Amino acid sequence: MRLAELSERSGVSTATIKYYLREGLLPPGRRVSATTAEYGEEHLRRLRLVRAIVQVGKVPVATAREVLAHVDDDSLGRTIRLGAALWALPHGPEPDPSDPAAVDAVREVERLLGMLGWSGARELGALSPVYRSLVVAVATLRRLGYPWDAELMAPYARLMHEAARRDLDFVETHPTEVEKAEVVVAATILFQPVMEALHRLAQEEESHRRYGFE
Amino acid sequence: MRLAELSERSGVSTATIKYYLREGLLPPGRRVSATTAEYGEEHLRRLRLVRAIVQVGKVPVATAREVLAHVDDDSLGRTIRLGAALWALPHGPEPDPSDPAAVDAVREVERLLGMLGWSGARELGALSPVYRSLVVAVATLRRLGYPWDAELMAPYARLMHEAARRDLDFVETHPTEVEKAEVVVAATILFQPVMEALHRLAQEEESHRRYGFE
Repeated sequence: MRLAELSERSGVSTATIKYYLREGLLPPGRRVSATTAEYGEEHLRRLRLVRAIVQVGKVPVATAREVLAHVDDDSLGRTIRLGAALWALPHGPEPDPSDPAAVDAVREVERLLGMLGWSGARELGALSPVYRSLVVAVATLRRLGYPWDAELMAPYARLMHEAARRDLDFVETHPTEVEKAEVVVAATILFQPVMEALHRLAQEEESHRRYGFE
Repeated sequence: MRLAELSERSGVSTATIKYYLREGLLPPGRRVSATTAEYGEEHLRRLRLVRAIVQVGKVPVATAREVLAHVDDDSLGRTIRLGAALWALPHGPEPDPSDPAAVDAVREVERLLGMLGWSGARELGALSPVYRSLVVAVATLRRLGYPWDAELMAPYARLMHEAARRDLDFVETHPTEVEKAEVVVAATILFQPVMEALHRLAQEEESHRRYGFE
């Protein structure tokens, strides 16, 4: 398809598409003459992902480029490819090793991973920005005096493991490695707000069932 | 206890405690003389919650006051009391009724609630800011062209309902109505980042189990 059709089908203006092409977020089309290029379904798919990363995720362009480079890297095995793309996304604050609450949190997180038998997560440990985010989140609640520990977190972690199994089953329905990597990045950005809203709506539903509306 | 001890036990400076007292975020202590007041365990608990709302949740002081007014309102039934406190917390953007993706999203959310049999959530519908957040989140992914629908969301909603049952079981271990309301607000602010990190860590763990580290 030509640029005009790509714009129409994606709902993205030609000016924005040209901007993404210039910034290297969208691979160039196949040149058919000096002034026109031909685009395929993979451009449509990639455009969708770029909007998710840049417009919804508010990820800076340089970072988005890095994420997409990992998505496209055929030399990587699947775990590393998915991990590298996600790890390149911006993360929250890092744990402060001089903070006693962070030390306390590392101990609880390690206890939790031991209880769960999550040996992969233990092996990676603080190398993973996700592990570090968990430490920061646990340190925050412990610093404020909430005594929520590994025993309290374990059942929630098991539910999230169930969710993760579904996530990967869904990823596996996508035919190619690049499509798998693309959907992982898109889902990480777009599905998190859905999960959070579902959780809070479930709380309202359950509260209504237990206590009525009075 | 005196102000100095309240400060020491909470880890909050006396200046900050005085600021919270002045702003009405912390109820006054019991006057024992013209210059001193006596504080109890309920002040320690409330201080913990105020820090969660203001420092971690970055909620404006006026909004925090409103949240706490609902937490303290003994005239409300439990569902309404918990709901009012949470609904007073800041929410994300509102659905745009002129956006076809939002109309599409409302249809998927209604289908989802029907499939789940969540009649309380259906009855409240768009009155609940949580329902509206779900519509916005679903509209965003549909606007970008991701065809994720009620069938895809339902199993995740069931997992979140399981989490919500545990949440309320935990809330019920707290003896008084005010403590129950306090823990709901604190958990909503502080536990969400823990859930998100657990989900992503579970994905890494599961990816490692299925595909190894190569």
